[in-house]
Amino acid sequence: VLARNDREAAHNREHFQTEGIVAVNLMGSPGSGKTALLEATVRAMRGRHRLAAVSGDLATDHDGARLRSAGIPSLSITTGTACHLDARLVHDALHRLDAGPVDILFIENVGNLVCPAIYDLGQTANVVVLSVTEGEDKPLKYPVMFRKVDLVVVTKADLIPHLPGFRREVLDDAIRRTMPVPRALTVSSVTGEGVHAWVAWLDELRATRAAEAPER
Amino acid sequence: VLARNDREAAHNREHFQTEGIVAVNLMGSPGSGKTALLEATVRAMRGRHRLAAVSGDLATDHDGARLRSAGIPSLSITTGTACHLDARLVHDALHRLDAGPVDILFIENVGNLVCPAIYDLGQTANVVVLSVTEGEDKPLKYPVMFRKVDLVVVTKADLIPHLPGFRREVLDDAIRRTMPVPRALTVSSVTGEGVHAWVAWLDELRATRAAEAPER
Repeated sequence: VLARNDREAAHNREHFQTEGIVAVNLMGSPGSGKTALLEATVRAMRGRHRLAAVSGDLATDHDGARLRSAGIPSLSITTGTACHLDARLVHDALHRLDAGPVDILFIENVGNLVCPAIYDLGQTANVVVLSVTEGEDKPLKYPVMFRKVDLVVVTKADLIPHLPGFRREVLDDAIRRTMPVPRALTVSSVTGEGVHAWVAWLDELRATRAAEAPER
Repeated sequence: VLARNDREAAHNREHFQTEGIVAVNLMGSPGSGKTALLEATVRAMRGRHRLAAVSGDLATDHDGARLRSAGIPSLSITTGTACHLDARLVHDALHRLDAGPVDILFIENVGNLVCPAIYDLGQTANVVVLSVTEGEDKPLKYPVMFRKVDLVVVTKADLIPHLPGFRREVLDDAIRRTMPVPRALTVSSVTGEGVHAWVAWLDELRATRAAEAPER
């Protein structure tokens, strides 16, 4: 299963490279704030890049509908009982989406801190969203995920004042001990705090990809 | 794999019945508050029942250690890359735990809203913990889980005043549309709000089980 997925991921990766698309595999627990982060991203970036999204969930079109409302081409991939997206599901969804030229594609994975880390989708970057309400020890408890990611986006920063037990230094230490190259940003999709740094990180990825892509 | 697990779950179930043990399979997303709920349960129940716990995580002994600190026999089951406990892992952990006579055994599953719902552990009851920060649509997005559970415990109620977009009626509607017999309690493990109702629910399970168990 994984070997076949790797072949399909290689196909996706080649497509993304040829087309100059940055594909961001956005992972995180259920309710960690992945869709809200993307809504805030659309607001912050509006007009500067051509964005699109596919969103994985066991059931419902909720996330796809939220992102279409936010103003970008988007559709939901319903996985039934599967706890993750795979390269073929993403490939087929992109054909159905037919979004035209895209600069940054967000692949919002199924809410899960385990399974999505194991399946390559052909993405340019792996990002995990971790909300401040989930507890500071999650990187240590889910090392399979945190070893795979290029960036941790710590979400729901607006709730920190209401979490008396929250210790940021414990979270940072856990991130340092699991990520190969520790990198974390802190945002609130409600207040907009920190979203500029996340957008700058995406801009940098996009600039690198645009420089790599063949002339078209 | 599932057929073998079912046989091992049947073995666990028979053991729990013979010994008069209520085994509660506690599931929920990473950071939904499963361990905090158990800590609050120990405080609220102290002395009335003999409690014990096994806690599943990919890595670390954090949850086992927290529950030992709370004053009950407990150990962690580390699953490596597996996103759920299975009946054999629980069986082997109970042999290692050697807790003596137990009235209520908590099986704290790996933080995940998908995989744990698929594996029978021989439990008396399935409970899912869902924190108010995770969003009201989670039952609809993770129906595999919510169709399987006897009770939803809505946690982190103390944060509701800080979540301006939280609509309780939307959550209740999603629960009604997915659970075969809808039943939900709302608690805060921080303030203790609602913990008495959860403890009463456990007491009822325990009374039923004690009435079923053979004379010993």
